[in-house]
Amino acid sequence: MEKIVCPGFQAAGIAAGIKNDGKRDLGLIFSNTPSKVGAIFTKNKIQAAPVILDRERVQSGLSQAIIVNSGNANCCNGKRGAVDARAMSAFVSTNLDIPEEMVLVASTGVIGQPLPIEKIQSSVPELAGLLKDDGFLDLALSIMTTDTMPKLVSRQGHINGKTFTVTAVAKGAGMIQPDMATMLCFICTDIDAKPEYLSYALWVASERSFNRISIDGDTSTNDTAIILANGLSGVVIENSVHKASFQRVLDDVCLALARMIVQDGEGATKLVEIIVKGAVSDEDAYAIAGKIGNSNLVKTAFFGEDANWGRILAAAGSAGVSFEPDNIDIFFDDVQMFGKGRGLGLTAEKKATQVMKKPEYTITLDLKSGEGHAFVYTCDFSLDYVRINADYRS
Amino acid sequence: MEKIVCPGFQAAGIAAGIKNDGKRDLGLIFSNTPSKVGAIFTKNKIQAAPVILDRERVQSGLSQAIIVNSGNANCCNGKRGAVDARAMSAFVSTNLDIPEEMVLVASTGVIGQPLPIEKIQSSVPELAGLLKDDGFLDLALSIMTTDTMPKLVSRQGHINGKTFTVTAVAKGAGMIQPDMATMLCFICTDIDAKPEYLSYALWVASERSFNRISIDGDTSTNDTAIILANGLSGVVIENSVHKASFQRVLDDVCLALARMIVQDGEGATKLVEIIVKGAVSDEDAYAIAGKIGNSNLVKTAFFGEDANWGRILAAAGSAGVSFEPDNIDIFFDDVQMFGKGRGLGLTAEKKATQVMKKPEYTITLDLKSGEGHAFVYTCDFSLDYVRINADYRS
Repeated sequence: MEKIVCPGFQAAGIAAGIKNDGKRDLGLIFSNTPSKVGAIFTKNKIQAAPVILDRERVQSGLSQAIIVNSGNANCCNGKRGAVDARAMSAFVSTNLDIPEEMVLVASTGVIGQPLPIEKIQSSVPELAGLLKDDGFLDLALSIMTTDTMPKLVSRQGHINGKTFTVTAVAKGAGMIQPDMATMLCFICTDIDAKPEYLSYALWVASERSFNRISIDGDTSTNDTAIILANGLSGVVIENSVHKASFQRVLDDVCLALARMIVQDGEGATKLVEIIVKGAVSDEDAYAIAGKIGNSNLVKTAFFGEDANWGRILAAAGSAGVSFEPDNIDIFFDDVQMFGKGRGLGLTAEKKATQVMKKPEYTITLDLKSGEGHAFVYTCDFSLDYVRINADYRS
Repeated sequence: MEKIVCPGFQAAGIAAGIKNDGKRDLGLIFSNTPSKVGAIFTKNKIQAAPVILDRERVQSGLSQAIIVNSGNANCCNGKRGAVDARAMSAFVSTNLDIPEEMVLVASTGVIGQPLPIEKIQSSVPELAGLLKDDGFLDLALSIMTTDTMPKLVSRQGHINGKTFTVTAVAKGAGMIQPDMATMLCFICTDIDAKPEYLSYALWVASERSFNRISIDGDTSTNDTAIILANGLSGVVIENSVHKASFQRVLDDVCLALARMIVQDGEGATKLVEIIVKGAVSDEDAYAIAGKIGNSNLVKTAFFGEDANWGRILAAAGSAGVSFEPDNIDIFFDDVQMFGKGRGLGLTAEKKATQVMKKPEYTITLDLKSGEGHAFVYTCDFSLDYVRINADYRS
């Protein structure tokens, strides 16, 4: 595996004993110089202590480190939660000799149990000592909860003949929608840009990636995406051409992570792209794609490899969008299953069943009513999803 | 078991060979005289052929029979679907010697496969011959799909010294929300009332029962509830006092059926009532109760008997309603688990875990912000739900 780095940044991840199973659970990102910072946070009314702290700290527009733990969400812990979140940042401040206000904090895991803060305190010196250029894999490992694979991506782009890098790690959401399971994403880049632009670009990229797997718009108490930009590449985002070039790379990074999150959805065995085209508007197309991608009945049929286009159509019909059923075409990859108001028979069904045996495929609905289109990524809904979530805390 | 009847009505249910397993799949309700009729239908944009037919026929305000099959939804079958739905009513018309327009039709089962109409044709004479006063159990058996228990209820009420009866059968929705799994309900009563009042009273009762288990508002392509009123009791609903008395009984019948549907949800092992009180409005309370009752993560925790109040709180926070987390109390039956912004510790958790071992219990959230309250019924989300739905068509 190629080493994943971002100039001017270091990362690390260790086992601090927060998780019961001895796996990595404490991670750190350090920027050698203060970086511009942008961030987006959960819209849930219940917000974890680190989210409340970070919202305040990113207002300054500058950050230099992020400490993150898995195994405990530090949410709904009353005043102690706020004290613990600040304490995490203080440990980093002391060990790296940077102002406490320059340290951001993130947590993911079980809600409502106090953080074992002394374990974090005693582990931060070791964690800081392990910081290295190619520590992003260790970091990605340390933020996993029910994820089975670490998720990290690095891409380069070019502006005015200069090369810039965008390197990111993420942890997956429980199911494919970050309903209550936390999505964390930390992005390092060596461009320079205004903090408010960084937040905006991150929001745009999320709309095109993480929000395409977050189908019903729910967010957990801890969802956090942060971008740090240290300017080391000499690339300064100053005009709309620069912005377009940077956005392309950022979108690419976020979409790659989003796909990894779906592929690694709890219990998931299939990655399915739902494409809706020919809608009156993009909004209509998204509403329909979201209903299909979020339907338990559709997702269990994906698991059962059952080419049940009836469930797909019924989900589409429940999206609150008007359309003419008789005009719709439904394809499984390039196999048409439905058209002119009825199913296309057993031959089509047999071919579609073959498509569904693949680990990745596409379901396309063409409404033939306009130019609106949208996509979402979803996964199947398996027995293991229930097993994982029935026993999560035990 | 006490015989369940409704004066002036007869019912029957037989196996016509529509289902592969030889179980009952064709049912009939007959009113000895033309009855006033009210009905509510699915809001799904994709509507099954019998739904389209019934919408038209109930406009007359009078019906005398309902024929219903399970095992095939007669949905998305193009023009043939419409022809078959009319044919079903024609068979009844011929055998019972009533006008075809007085016959309503309902279907439930797999979408997109043509009805085996010749099997229905050859079975209707036998079905009509078996009509009897206490045939409601046979009828209830004949409309089951993944239901494991027949669902029927009969209640009596009194108006002006006269006794009236409301007798109903229903079939369950797949999960607890009638997402794409069909909810059918047929109600017979011997009151007399205007058809438009019957539809309204049925809608009111549904809002207080079936829609308390239909959490995200989705409806299947075939959802249908019909009420027939033959006037035989001599009770005529003429004023608001009568309406209140009748509504109480109708609500009671529908709520009893709704509870049966949740208890018999696919794979369900628990019936859980989610109560939200102290909200600013009933709408806010319902939004929160619905989010909790519909959360896969909450429902898998119910299955795992895990007193994970964090998931409940996080679901509440994602309902789009503002509230003060530090004010909330959460109870499992009468065991308080959360208050003053934090969990109440291991002793409470152990007691709550005992509550969760019961087949029925209540989760109460008190927001302490106003007078708004709401409830929903939900069930747990088990391994069997996935098994049932992955293999539904095979």
